[in-house]
Amino acid sequence: MRLPQLTRKSMERYLPILEWSKTYDKDTLTSDLVAAIIVTIMLIPQSLAYALLAGLPAEMGLYASILPLVAYAVFGTSRALAVGPVAVVSLMTAAAVGNLALQGTAEYAIAAITLAFISGLFLLVMGIFRLGFLANFLSHPVIAGFITASGVLIATSQLKHLFGIQAEGHNLVQLVISLFENQHLTNPITLFIGLTTTGFLFWVRKGLKPLLLGMGLKPRLADILAKAGPVGAVVATTLVTWAFGLHDKGVKIVGDVPMGLPPLTMPSFDADLWSSLLVSAILISIIGFVESVSVAQTLAAKKRQRIVPDQELVGLGASNIASAISGGYPVTGGFARSVVNFDAGAETPAAGAFTAVGILLAALLLTPLLFFLPKATLAATIIVAVLSLVDFSILSKTWNYSKVDFAAVAATIFLTLGFGVEMGVSAGVILSIGLFLYKTSRPHVAEVGLVPGTQHFRNILRHDVETHPEIVTLRIDESLYFANARFLEDYIYNRIACDEPIRHVVLMCSAVNEIDMSALESLEAINHRLIDLDIKLHLTEVKGPVMDRLKRSHFLDELSGEVFLAQYDAVVKLTRPHPVAAQ
Amino acid sequence: MRLPQLTRKSMERYLPILEWSKTYDKDTLTSDLVAAIIVTIMLIPQSLAYALLAGLPAEMGLYASILPLVAYAVFGTSRALAVGPVAVVSLMTAAAVGNLALQGTAEYAIAAITLAFISGLFLLVMGIFRLGFLANFLSHPVIAGFITASGVLIATSQLKHLFGIQAEGHNLVQLVISLFENQHLTNPITLFIGLTTTGFLFWVRKGLKPLLLGMGLKPRLADILAKAGPVGAVVATTLVTWAFGLHDKGVKIVGDVPMGLPPLTMPSFDADLWSSLLVSAILISIIGFVESVSVAQTLAAKKRQRIVPDQELVGLGASNIASAISGGYPVTGGFARSVVNFDAGAETPAAGAFTAVGILLAALLLTPLLFFLPKATLAATIIVAVLSLVDFSILSKTWNYSKVDFAAVAATIFLTLGFGVEMGVSAGVILSIGLFLYKTSRPHVAEVGLVPGTQHFRNILRHDVETHPEIVTLRIDESLYFANARFLEDYIYNRIACDEPIRHVVLMCSAVNEIDMSALESLEAINHRLIDLDIKLHLTEVKGPVMDRLKRSHFLDELSGEVFLAQYDAVVKLTRPHPVAAQ
Repeated sequence: MRLPQLTRKSMERYLPILEWSKTYDKDTLTSDLVAAIIVTIMLIPQSLAYALLAGLPAEMGLYASILPLVAYAVFGTSRALAVGPVAVVSLMTAAAVGNLALQGTAEYAIAAITLAFISGLFLLVMGIFRLGFLANFLSHPVIAGFITASGVLIATSQLKHLFGIQAEGHNLVQLVISLFENQHLTNPITLFIGLTTTGFLFWVRKGLKPLLLGMGLKPRLADILAKAGPVGAVVATTLVTWAFGLHDKGVKIVGDVPMGLPPLTMPSFDADLWSSLLVSAILISIIGFVESVSVAQTLAAKKRQRIVPDQELVGLGASNIASAISGGYPVTGGFARSVVNFDAGAETPAAGAFTAVGILLAALLLTPLLFFLPKATLAATIIVAVLSLVDFSILSKTWNYSKVDFAAVAATIFLTLGFGVEMGVSAGVILSIGLFLYKTSRPHVAEVGLVPGTQHFRNILRHDVETHPEIVTLRIDESLYFANARFLEDYIYNRIACDEPIRHVVLMCSAVNEIDMSALESLEAINHRLIDLDIKLHLTEVKGPVMDRLKRSHFLDELSGEVFLAQYDAVVKLTRPHPVAAQ
Repeated sequence: MRLPQLTRKSMERYLPILEWSKTYDKDTLTSDLVAAIIVTIMLIPQSLAYALLAGLPAEMGLYASILPLVAYAVFGTSRALAVGPVAVVSLMTAAAVGNLALQGTAEYAIAAITLAFISGLFLLVMGIFRLGFLANFLSHPVIAGFITASGVLIATSQLKHLFGIQAEGHNLVQLVISLFENQHLTNPITLFIGLTTTGFLFWVRKGLKPLLLGMGLKPRLADILAKAGPVGAVVATTLVTWAFGLHDKGVKIVGDVPMGLPPLTMPSFDADLWSSLLVSAILISIIGFVESVSVAQTLAAKKRQRIVPDQELVGLGASNIASAISGGYPVTGGFARSVVNFDAGAETPAAGAFTAVGILLAALLLTPLLFFLPKATLAATIIVAVLSLVDFSILSKTWNYSKVDFAAVAATIFLTLGFGVEMGVSAGVILSIGLFLYKTSRPHVAEVGLVPGTQHFRNILRHDVETHPEIVTLRIDESLYFANARFLEDYIYNRIACDEPIRHVVLMCSAVNEIDMSALESLEAINHRLIDLDIKLHLTEVKGPVMDRLKRSHFLDELSGEVFLAQYDAVVKLTRPHPVAAQ
């Protein structure tokens, strides 16, 4: 009777909690609790700030940091990933929903909730059908460029809160123009609070921990205090605003944040809304998944653990659906937050669940204290957080290494800044794939000769090699498929048109990983054309899977020459009857 | 002073007529004239029929066979291509325009003219920017499947004329349902004419030429007479219809066809119309170009001539623009017609220009004689012509050779039949590219060993080879790029997790034609992970262009192992300190 065991195995695949909970003990609990406290302290101001970035009421940031964390703890495979609202996804939410409804309206909030729901469903379906590999089509440089450009966009979009003015736009040009148009309305007190907080937070990041250590504090405590910097800024600026009545002097504050449990919400099932949000939801899902999986993989590698990307899709899908039914908006695994969680010693996803409890307590007890919190403080929190994501060095790195990668990155950055996040990331993906296809459609073909004293063949232009005038050996550095089938024909016809005494064309197929039907037809055409010219066509070093397939066609029967296991065998055999041969 | 010569060279590139006209003599003229006469005889009924297939007045088929042929003669590079209305493009025109206007209205005709104009512009721009390679992304099997499915659709769409009933639809299901619903209205005389003509034309194709040869006619004359079969059917059925007044008995006839020169027409420049037609125009351009270039290349190869695909784009673009300004609709190089032109001895594109004169004479003189021509005769002409394109053997061929190709073909055929030509061909292209990307994202990786007595390494699963327990040699059968970078990491981590005593991982890069930035980052990650496990990473047989690029990064400085020119060198060196080594 093996069924129960099988069922448990397959349940563990879909419910990783069943696996790690088996070995959960008091030590693990302590580690997880400490990590949860630190992440909670960090997450409270962040979640409020990112909700504002998404154009949503501050409490939705808190709601998005409760149930989604519990859902991830049940379904996710990463031991350290901290899920919740993140900067890029919040910006993408604003871009997606901003076209459909006005900020501050109920429609806007419902659209954001629906976006989380669609995104969750999409991730879940991707996970169930194991389509996680699709995320691989976002190249690393494109992601890096996108994150950098998004960071710039986000920081710029927050400047309005620092200045206390209005400014709108989904791209850099609109934002900058809007800021300049309204800069005469700058509120000096707001600007002072904003700049002071920004400066303080930058100092906390770089200078506070060394200072505390220098003062003799234990490293762990110094660490916690440094992480609590944003909370300190929140407390200090809220007190100052309250004490001096700054909100009456034009300093914009967060205001009334409802107290209590997250509400039970329902996404809209309006077909028009779904079709308007679908593309955005897919983009958010993919970007969120890629960001989350990268972090999770990096952290798992440090502890020799493994994550299961397809199950991560299920975990993030469940998180987003949980967010949608509890008044939240799209969430994913955050970079900074997860690193903090990891460094703080989180051992299992339970740390996330404990963080959720912390945020829940904040939502139940602390929200009235947030009334006088200046929006400029939250903006400063965001600016300091996202500027750490900005890294234009990817441009110089790719420029040095590969112009094709550079083109994809530059286009992604330019289009993200100039036309918004959705355009940027779509263009990045399409361009990466397009450039790859273009390269494979014009493969590198090397004419090769024998490296003296070996059985190894290399490019005649790069190495000092032996060749034979009657034999042309071409090493095709690409799989042969429809996009380059015609190129190969042209290449060979041009090559044999140059020299007279050619009697053998040898195609060295060591780099040919595939010959599709179109390429097979081209090879047949080449074979027939060469027969007309009294030249024999030979293949060498054909790989097993390619050979299997060729054997199922008529090509090998019609081939004028032979198929050799090794290039060396071909040269030995073809030059044998000629005593003057080079070899 | 070399400018004039340069200018002439570059003018010859864009105006191939300048080149071939230099050697034009009386013999060439005779050959071209004979070919032109045969093609004219073939083209008159075809052009009328295809106009009807496109839902246009018959005379537009004639107009599309005059000026476009002259334009191609000036700008085209193929010596034998015969341009004009063709079946598949006519069907695609009907599909594109049928959504926008009712057949028989002026709007419908103007939309078709505009479609030719946009398509011409698109081809011209593609040609000027030398984007002909884009057509390579249509794989041979997808084209074959598309042509076959279109042939079935076209033949089915013509059955209504054979039965003398109404039937509409852009896909097979709609057409068949529509035919069944209206079959009780069948006109028996029309059906008799239609079936007789169809039978006669099939017999002409197969049986007439041998019969004539058996009667002692010269081959060339027998050939011309056999090609004139459709004209014979046109004359005979027209006479019968006129003599017995069959049009009063319900036999639908072509009716009044205006006599005279092609009119000077202007495409519409309505922005809405352009945006509705744009996608269709692009699809028509690409399909037309691919069909045309395939024919042109096949025929050129037979005479050791070459065509220039990018200049072919210019030639076809000019033809379509010529068609748009002279009352025609989209045209391209036709398969059957070009083969006839070639077999009849056409030497230069001038044959096309002479054909244009022949059709012009027909338009000036013969149109009144077409009044009583039954539409059933034209339908029979189309059915017989397109059924020669139908060849489902591509399904079994691809099934045997490659399931991936089969999937693309089957989807193309199914979607073309089920959802129309535009859906079919779009899906074919997207699926071909998608499946290629999918394959490359999960590359074949072979663990290899030394073939005894050689320096050649092959798959340990397929060949009897020598290996060494401390060395794992992996041959990666794919370029390393963003889509498979993560796959490689996972593969290697899994492989080294299996065995204990591994001390060297050797990546044999003979099939790695590219390492992009994403893959480089993965290699760096692999290198660091292996260092942690005290395993060295080596590369062998790295190609020149790949090595050039690696040298520009820091990877080679950090690499724990070495880069070997040949796999054999690596094994010799790595096993040297161990006297028990297998090699």
